[in-house]
Amino acid sequence: MKLATLRTTGGTRAVRRDGDLLVDLGYPDLGALLAEPDWQDRAATAAGPAHPVEGADFAPVVPAPSKVVCVGHNYTDHIKEMGRDLPQYPTLFPKFADTLLGAGDAIVKPPETEALDWEVELALVIGREVRRADERQAAEAIAGFTVMNDISVRDWQFRTVEWTQGKIWQASTPVGPYVVTPDEVGGVRPSLQVTTTVDGQVMQRDDTGTLLFDPVFLVRYISTVTTLRPGDIIATGTPAGVGNAREPKVFLRPGSTVVTEISGLGACVNTVAGA
Amino acid sequence: MKLATLRTTGGTRAVRRDGDLLVDLGYPDLGALLAEPDWQDRAATAAGPAHPVEGADFAPVVPAPSKVVCVGHNYTDHIKEMGRDLPQYPTLFPKFADTLLGAGDAIVKPPETEALDWEVELALVIGREVRRADERQAAEAIAGFTVMNDISVRDWQFRTVEWTQGKIWQASTPVGPYVVTPDEVGGVRPSLQVTTTVDGQVMQRDDTGTLLFDPVFLVRYISTVTTLRPGDIIATGTPAGVGNAREPKVFLRPGSTVVTEISGLGACVNTVAGA
Repeated sequence: MKLATLRTTGGTRAVRRDGDLLVDLGYPDLGALLAEPDWQDRAATAAGPAHPVEGADFAPVVPAPSKVVCVGHNYTDHIKEMGRDLPQYPTLFPKFADTLLGAGDAIVKPPETEALDWEVELALVIGREVRRADERQAAEAIAGFTVMNDISVRDWQFRTVEWTQGKIWQASTPVGPYVVTPDEVGGVRPSLQVTTTVDGQVMQRDDTGTLLFDPVFLVRYISTVTTLRPGDIIATGTPAGVGNAREPKVFLRPGSTVVTEISGLGACVNTVAGA
Repeated sequence: MKLATLRTTGGTRAVRRDGDLLVDLGYPDLGALLAEPDWQDRAATAAGPAHPVEGADFAPVVPAPSKVVCVGHNYTDHIKEMGRDLPQYPTLFPKFADTLLGAGDAIVKPPETEALDWEVELALVIGREVRRADERQAAEAIAGFTVMNDISVRDWQFRTVEWTQGKIWQASTPVGPYVVTPDEVGGVRPSLQVTTTVDGQVMQRDDTGTLLFDPVFLVRYISTVTTLRPGDIIATGTPAGVGNAREPKVFLRPGSTVVTEISGLGACVNTVAGA
């Protein structure tokens, strides 16, 4: 199944994609749907009003997750290529619900930065409450996968040793358009091609099969620290090719279009707007 | 006014302290109260059922803030004493709603750590939505002040360069008991004595008047990055004397009692329990 949260004139609605249609599932958003213990059955069988896919206005897949946990340094080939040792633990940093954008929304460049950067990431959405999940519980807690563009304000990210202030800018981070259930992408450790293009130029390309810390591991690790709840989002890190690591550096400017795409999941397509 | 969120048999309730009584304000928690534009008038005049202060079971002052932003390295005297230059920018890191505990709750030591540490902090609670607040707006956005014990799992905090995974442990961080309005503590940049004692031994003592980045500055800085909403919490950093910096190191053990107190605000009094 491909599930989404659609903006309509009557507010947001949880929907399932059926061909060229988005079928209303009877919930205001995917967060509310995923809170139902039998959400899979409900999502598969609901048959509410349908909206066309064409022209759909997607909200963040879950508009108000209780937490968004992101992972740094996680693509094995990129770490090795940089001559670094593989890390023993994942590096974690946060975003908040306020940080998120829909898959087709404009990214507004804050006037306070000239270093607005992209990061394509495979993200997973939690479908079952877990704490200290074992292998099976962690696998079963993954409702599905989506695309996140972990937009980063580099000058603020590196003002101090902690990245948080570069990662939580208001309405900066597209996530969507769909949550795709694991059965559609080869399971809970999928090998999918991730790509970023900026104005048609390929900037990042890698395969999620090379992740050092895979989705199941991350659910186990993070759920050791804190409860993961239905709708919570974990972003699994980005491969080589971000603008800040280029020579010369390249950043997003008003008028640019950034496309972050993952095979089988779809794409976030976002223009950059001035403030 | 001293406001709080009280646990009752019928769920949590927002209350105002009147002498030895806690008066029900007609809202399920302070987050709901603070979302009202005229919350000050409502809080001052409401006259619902009263509960005794004695034996009160306090919830986190705001049980479900949309974000909790914490500040590192902020006590001027401590920074100078360590021979460091004063930082140009505040260091920010997160907690989530799930991280919080009530002022009198037990802190359960996770079995995954032997390095559970204390950090007394002046915290402020937002009472008005702000983005890119100017000086006046920032001052007016501060609903009041409370005590946070920014419990830190040091071994996980220092596994990677990002502190997040040591700062977001489930139900680890007492915050309360009251939100005290600025008029009761000398305004929005109060000089209050902060103290931590562990089993009666004073571990931290300093004055919030020595903060490098004061509460108004922090609201301005953080609201540049993201919207601050009613109920959001900003913790302003801790002075010298944490267990991890002692020689030898001292950590919290089951059976310990840690008291974090700020003059005029009250204290969090928490026993440490085994898992």
